[in-house]
Amino acid sequence: MAAATLARRIGRSGVLPLCCRLPAWDRATRPPSSPLQPPGLPLAPCRSFSNNRIQVELDESSGVAMMKFKSPPVNSLSLEFLTEFSISLEKLENNRACRGVIITSAVPKIFSSGLDITEMCGKSTEHYTEFWRAVQEGSSPAGGCLVALSCDYRIMAENPKFSIGLNEAQLGIVAPFWFKDTFVNVVGQRIAERSLQLGSLHPAPEAQKLGLVDELVPEEKLMEKAAAVMAQWLALPDHARQLTKTMMRKAVLDRLVAHREEDIKNFVSFVSKESIQKSLRMYMEMLKKRKS
Amino acid sequence: MAAATLARRIGRSGVLPLCCRLPAWDRATRPPSSPLQPPGLPLAPCRSFSNNRIQVELDESSGVAMMKFKSPPVNSLSLEFLTEFSISLEKLENNRACRGVIITSAVPKIFSSGLDITEMCGKSTEHYTEFWRAVQEGSSPAGGCLVALSCDYRIMAENPKFSIGLNEAQLGIVAPFWFKDTFVNVVGQRIAERSLQLGSLHPAPEAQKLGLVDELVPEEKLMEKAAAVMAQWLALPDHARQLTKTMMRKAVLDRLVAHREEDIKNFVSFVSKESIQKSLRMYMEMLKKRKS
Amino acid sequence: MAAATLARRIGRSGVLPLCCRLPAWDRATRPPSSPLQPPGLPLAPCRSFSNNRIQVELDESSGVAMMKFKSPPVNSLSLEFLTEFSISLEKLENNRACRGVIITSAVPKIFSSGLDITEMCGKSTEHYTEFWRAVQEGSSPAGGCLVALSCDYRIMAENPKFSIGLNEAQLGIVAPFWFKDTFVNVVGQRIAERSLQLGSLHPAPEAQKLGLVDELVPEEKLMEKAAAVMAQWLALPDHARQLTKTMMRKAVLDRLVAHREEDIKNFVSFVSKESIQKSLRMYMEMLKKRKS
Repeated sequence: MAAATLARRIGRSGVLPLCCRLPAWDRATRPPSSPLQPPGLPLAPCRSFSNNRIQVELDESSGVAMMKFKSPPVNSLSLEFLTEFSISLEKLENNRACRGVIITSAVPKIFSSGLDITEMCGKSTEHYTEFWRAVQEGSSPAGGCLVALSCDYRIMAENPKFSIGLNEAQLGIVAPFWFKDTFVNVVGQRIAERSLQLGSLHPAPEAQKLGLVDELVPEEKLMEKAAAVMAQWLALPDHARQLTKTMMRKAVLDRLVAHREEDIKNFVSFVSKESIQKSLRMYMEMLKKRKS
Repeated sequence: MAAATLARRIGRSGVLPLCCRLPAWDRATRPPSSPLQPPGLPLAPCRSFSNNRIQVELDESSGVAMMKFKSPPVNSLSLEFLTEFSISLEKLENNRACRGVIITSAVPKIFSSGLDITEMCGKSTEHYTEFWRAVQEGSSPAGGCLVALSCDYRIMAENPKFSIGLNEAQLGIVAPFWFKDTFVNVVGQRIAERSLQLGSLHPAPEAQKLGLVDELVPEEKLMEKAAAVMAQWLALPDHARQLTKTMMRKAVLDRLVAHREEDIKNFVSFVSKESIQKSLRMYMEMLKKRKS
Repeated sequence: MAAATLARRIGRSGVLPLCCRLPAWDRATRPPSSPLQPPGLPLAPCRSFSNNRIQVELDESSGVAMMKFKSPPVNSLSLEFLTEFSISLEKLENNRACRGVIITSAVPKIFSSGLDITEMCGKSTEHYTEFWRAVQEGSSPAGGCLVALSCDYRIMAENPKFSIGLNEAQLGIVAPFWFKDTFVNVVGQRIAERSLQLGSLHPAPEAQKLGLVDELVPEEKLMEKAAAVMAQWLALPDHARQLTKTMMRKAVLDRLVAHREEDIKNFVSFVSKESIQKSLRMYMEMLKKRKS
């Protein structure tokens, strides 16, 4: 039962990229007729739905859903955003017509600025706990970590002004182990070590070179390319692809599931420190100055 | 004792590459005078021997054996083929004059088409069990997985018409975890994940770029190059090279040994499903149509 | 408590590269004001100090220490050298003004020839034990393995005459598992497997291509580049960078700590074998002949 859920979740979902400054096209796929899925499950019709911050459209003929982040100015991952994200994924998961999801942004020039720093600053312990649980949930514990890294394929606009990375270290905080595990799965240990220690945001060409994104295309070709890649992946039998994906990501996933509560405690205790609060306030000041 | 066996097996052997459509030159090496080997072991003279499907010649002066698959039309890995393969490796293993093996094909234009699908289709549970055990055996549980990936060095003809990969997903089945582990050891997690999910067969130039093969050479230079590479590896003291190899592959090997019976059960149960049988029949139909 | 020690050690130190024939600039960094550090720790003033074989200068304004190996002819890692190295790192570790260390050589054309073979040849069991413990200590068990590989960034003179690698296999011996683990962390499993089995010493351009060094610069630019890279790393908040590094290297470190005594026993037992002693003597003979 648990396995079925995990498998299905892994099958299609992802986790939000932290500080992913790109109008990227990410995709994840999911089996509609998995052998693990109870056969009698009723179809939940869902052609399109929209919350405050996320818009979803499902093409039932192709089985491909388009999920667009629309939370200006920068699609930052607040508690509310993450909750909506989690619910949207859940809905698609329960819709047997959905075989894959393309995740993108409706806000020009940005995919997501990452975790919302204001959620980590000057709030209560209860709030931090709730926020971090939402990060884990929205990030689909079954899927792994970051939206982009958890997807099956990453396409980015070939504009050196756009960048992607995990910049926690620059804020004076540390990426949780399951962000790290997922990052390592994509780019390997050495690149991850350097990038995470420096909190690097990699411009598109560098990101591709490092393997952080799979492909760069002109901005106007993003949708077209995403659809083409999705078609390529959906050409495979769903159950075989899904079981393979589960096998590939099992170790990282199991580790997150096993240490989930511990991870929340660590985050809350860390972020509650006055020194960390000070770091975060300084970073926010710096961001404000940069804008003005 | 177990360690000695493992070490010696790891020392030279490999596992057959699934759907490896290339006249590749693969090699594996083995220590004749390992500290782990009982000193009094009698030499089993073996200059050359041939079964129905595999031909072996050993040059006792250099210690290099040449193993050629000769099971037309496509050297597919049937139960009989795998049994012969296992026996051939065993013979070389027991021959102290043998220091390394070059594995290639006597069938033009193909190394091996991979596991024989007819062995997985319409047979009895007993047959599936026996077949999968032979895959594990022939694949030398000590060595890892696929012949090519388990070898120390992979040389392929530089012809984009030849391809190599693990295409299970295309057949609707899933590579076992120890194929996956070995694949990851060679090309890394990310490339393995994408390649296995898509069941990709990579043309030679791409295979080299991904690290799936080490070198491409013109077809007529394969033998020459294989001999040169073998000489380079045999220049090292056998025991040091062998122990290093054991150390590098120990984790993957231990995992296979620990979960071997479970892996057989999984395979038999999976392949016995009517849905999987249907997938395999469809794939065979498709192959037949392609030929005609 | 242990964690604090580990974290701080990991924060800055490294392990000597075995047979690293390069005037390389390696660096490692360390947090002066880590949250893990007891706040009342008195500053040990240490502007510069020098033992017989290692010279250290600390620029207290930048927090950057320069450590130079000066044990001609080849900075080989003898028991005495490793002891001094360990003490020097310890001193810097206890100096809160020190945030990072640049490790280089005062001997022209060589960084270090690696472990001193004479320490492994014709000595007593007690001596082997003491030596290997010093290798582990000097190598900073907390940091990982080899000096260069344990550093955060590796810069090498772009001269193909200089080379770097772990050439144990050429001597007929085997790199310990924690050398291997660290090597794999930097270059990945496949490159490590081939390089360790062949005992390869990679010329600078190849070393960079394999990821064994991060950057090549003209020899006269080494110092300048090392300082620039150090500045880039020290721009990050120390505690975040340090915790990230700890997280990245924890698995390898834990494994070494858990198997330390076993590793010493293995080394002593292995190196005490007459066959191994013979291999080492032959290698030394060969080196002598090459010189004359």
